[in-house]
Amino acid sequence: MTSEVKELVDGVLHRATAEVGLDVEYVRARGNTVFARGRDGTGVPVADFLGGYGALLLGHNHPDLVAHLANLLAQETPVLVQLSSQPAADEVVRTLNRVLHREFDVDEPYFGVFANSGAEGIEVALKHAEFDRGQRVDAMRAEIDENIGAALSAGLAGATVDGSVLGLPVGSAVDEVVEEIRVRNAAAFATGPRLIALSGGFHGKLVGSGQLTHNHDYRSPFASLAAQATFAPANEPEALRAVFEDARVTAYDLRITETRAEVVRRDAPVFCALLVEPVQGEGGIVPLTAEFAKQVQELGAEFGCPVVVDEIQSGTGRTGTFFASAQLGLLGDYYVLSKSIGGGLAKLSVTLVRAARYRPEFEMVHSSTFAKDGLSTSVAAAVLELLEAGDGALYRVAAERGRRLSAALHEVRAEYPEIITDVRGLGLLQGVEFGDLSTSGSTLAAQLQAQGQFGFLASGFLLHEHRIRLFPTGSAPNTLRLEPSVQVTDEEIDRLATGLRALCALLRAGDDQGLTAFIAKREF
Amino acid sequence: MTSEVKELVDGVLHRATAEVGLDVEYVRARGNTVFARGRDGTGVPVADFLGGYGALLLGHNHPDLVAHLANLLAQETPVLVQLSSQPAADEVVRTLNRVLHREFDVDEPYFGVFANSGAEGIEVALKHAEFDRGQRVDAMRAEIDENIGAALSAGLAGATVDGSVLGLPVGSAVDEVVEEIRVRNAAAFATGPRLIALSGGFHGKLVGSGQLTHNHDYRSPFASLAAQATFAPANEPEALRAVFEDARVTAYDLRITETRAEVVRRDAPVFCALLVEPVQGEGGIVPLTAEFAKQVQELGAEFGCPVVVDEIQSGTGRTGTFFASAQLGLLGDYYVLSKSIGGGLAKLSVTLVRAARYRPEFEMVHSSTFAKDGLSTSVAAAVLELLEAGDGALYRVAAERGRRLSAALHEVRAEYPEIITDVRGLGLLQGVEFGDLSTSGSTLAAQLQAQGQFGFLASGFLLHEHRIRLFPTGSAPNTLRLEPSVQVTDEEIDRLATGLRALCALLRAGDDQGLTAFIAKREF
Repeated sequence: MTSEVKELVDGVLHRATAEVGLDVEYVRARGNTVFARGRDGTGVPVADFLGGYGALLLGHNHPDLVAHLANLLAQETPVLVQLSSQPAADEVVRTLNRVLHREFDVDEPYFGVFANSGAEGIEVALKHAEFDRGQRVDAMRAEIDENIGAALSAGLAGATVDGSVLGLPVGSAVDEVVEEIRVRNAAAFATGPRLIALSGGFHGKLVGSGQLTHNHDYRSPFASLAAQATFAPANEPEALRAVFEDARVTAYDLRITETRAEVVRRDAPVFCALLVEPVQGEGGIVPLTAEFAKQVQELGAEFGCPVVVDEIQSGTGRTGTFFASAQLGLLGDYYVLSKSIGGGLAKLSVTLVRAARYRPEFEMVHSSTFAKDGLSTSVAAAVLELLEAGDGALYRVAAERGRRLSAALHEVRAEYPEIITDVRGLGLLQGVEFGDLSTSGSTLAAQLQAQGQFGFLASGFLLHEHRIRLFPTGSAPNTLRLEPSVQVTDEEIDRLATGLRALCALLRAGDDQGLTAFIAKREF
Repeated sequence: MTSEVKELVDGVLHRATAEVGLDVEYVRARGNTVFARGRDGTGVPVADFLGGYGALLLGHNHPDLVAHLANLLAQETPVLVQLSSQPAADEVVRTLNRVLHREFDVDEPYFGVFANSGAEGIEVALKHAEFDRGQRVDAMRAEIDENIGAALSAGLAGATVDGSVLGLPVGSAVDEVVEEIRVRNAAAFATGPRLIALSGGFHGKLVGSGQLTHNHDYRSPFASLAAQATFAPANEPEALRAVFEDARVTAYDLRITETRAEVVRRDAPVFCALLVEPVQGEGGIVPLTAEFAKQVQELGAEFGCPVVVDEIQSGTGRTGTFFASAQLGLLGDYYVLSKSIGGGLAKLSVTLVRAARYRPEFEMVHSSTFAKDGLSTSVAAAVLELLEAGDGALYRVAAERGRRLSAALHEVRAEYPEIITDVRGLGLLQGVEFGDLSTSGSTLAAQLQAQGQFGFLASGFLLHEHRIRLFPTGSAPNTLRLEPSVQVTDEEIDRLATGLRALCALLRAGDDQGLTAFIAKREF
């Protein structure tokens, strides 16, 4: 019965992961440790370097957060009381504003919209940006209509206008020019939203957000369901400019002087949003360069395109500052936070929208039953309190632990440069990239790598031989993702390094039997 | 500072609701009662007939569920341990299968996919249905290619074929016919997904699900972001057939007999999904008729269109059976559950997909960090245990409470037939519709009704004068929605009836001062 039931939830996935020993049941979790159900009934401690895909910066079951949530329950806190006052939600957004103002040295307020997952947070940003774009289109249309009306009523109806901008004669009749402007503008304003995202980017897997996620397998089967994005290569400033230039759409306006009207070009508001992660997560732990971040910000301003900074994985303190983008000097129009802001207990996202972009009417057309619930908002408030306590002590720990982790990984890389080809990341968001294994001694590893499955074998090996939990990134299968909590110890980092060394040694030696011995001798 | 902060989260919404006294803060909640913060500092008990938009069938902070969740926390239950075994998730889907098999008298397994909100659950269904449709398209394309290949290799290449189905001559060359089939099929298979939903339907407000929600204000500003649905009027069987007929797209195949080939028409797999709520919620609490439900099922089968039954609000026992659709005899290809399955504490959804439709490869391309977390799945398992205990006792309570509520509402309607024009619903999902108030004595009510705001005035009145929490439905603003928990008492139902009588009497008397007196004398 048990096996039959497993088949009804992610059965295929379960069988695939079971092949490399990942079909483990965890029975307890605390701090950076998860306890696997051992074959002998005991709990086997495992160091968690996956950290719930980055949702556990504060570790599993942080005692303060557990106590906070238990206390909310004991007090019979209202959980679902929609449309009433929600002081915890207010507190979360107030704190986020304080942090943002400090880290970016700005004072513009950011409005907050709550949802239930990172992907939902991205969709909130997307919906709001499109709502805003629609209003920008309406405003430009009205402005041009007004200019045309003014031109006609200014007695210019019989005059001639230089129509060459429109491909019309220099001495065109005003009526004719106006008609051409109207036709062209109707087409320009009907242009769908331009969405720009980056190669290797990941922004969730819901219907809309899934089309902003670059991974072909995740995206293409669902392409007919939502608006398509244009993907620009990450960290190539000129390529990003080219994408913007290509996507530009011209509208036409009349500028009226005392005696004559002139046709002028304007950029139609076709740009809905540009989405970036300060450190690409699923794409293989790739930090944006400062130069690229600067280009993102400049092009956003130049083309009137709101910049959505996806801090779902990189944010909430993981990289040594609350916002990873603060280290890049990238000030977004939108920020999306999720994962660790729930403290590993609550599920929520917060989408921040800068005041200059915020459209309050959006509140009337977007909502969610579960969003802004009493438990998740209060847990998030407690998370922020922990993060902000002690004048940034926790951010310093994240930075220090990140340096320690990075140094250990670089050492292993130095010893096995033909196997580990890169170590990169920021703070407690690090990636270890394996090179081409086809020339390594291991036939098995080469074969699995060709199928994009080597990272899972490595995960199984490290789990069973070294009690290390980690996975490869979803879209860069040769990169192992490391996102431990701030509680990660020196011993755990050393153990990870030892495990990676052992893995590399087996690969170098081509010892396929050694690589897979764990499968037969599994203890959990 | 406090007022400034409120402005950063739903500030406009907050001010709008404050005008009718809905800017209340609830400080405690238990069972069917929420306690508002009184001006004198005490908690003012309010009977909750809104029930978290239907998420609280088991009431606020159900003691068994609170104890269960507190125990999970005390045991340091792993919350985010993705890709590992998740026994609670398995248990939830096993129980849902048992319930489904019992209520629909079938034995086909349904696979379960977890997500974090009702809207996400709908998007899972939508994505899966499109994934399935893509594979159906590929399969038909391959089959036709094979038939064409067989025809050509069967020595029919030089023969003639009756091309009249394609508008070609009766004696067309096979090559010519094959070419025409290929051109036509390429267009047929490139047709976007046909999504059919119902007028008045509500399926969430994310990018994809929002386009399946009929309400124009919620949908149209975001129309460029996702695939569009065709909306058929609810409860009009023939109109639904017409929508299907209109949306049909023909592909062409060759059927080969011993000596000749014949061109035959086939339906291209363009139908992605038909979405229905057994009882429309946001649309004004409108149960589908059995006749219409029968048509839904028949057309789904006839056109090969999967039927997605949205039981987010109606399901999980609210109407006296676990699935409201069981009372209609409507067996879906998909079911989406959310709201009350979280017991008012956890946020999750479960999308069930029948085995005949399930595509296990979907597991490889869809996931969510927060989905299937240890807390929400275990709470859902506890919710199902409560619901299923005592041989359906709880469903009988929901049915009985629903009858009691409905009877009380019908009595009020009988007394004020010109004001309350309809009472309808199923079990603990009831709607009270107000008629045209422009001829009532109340200028204020008529004016607010014209703006779609009368329901909120009624909500404020009932809250402050009678300690009743309720709201109108989002898309049918003249209908008050009643979705109390199973703990709702006779006294609370009587109080609701008393409040509605008082409201109707003031409307009949045109006593605008009486209708708004509560605003000045607010106690909370």
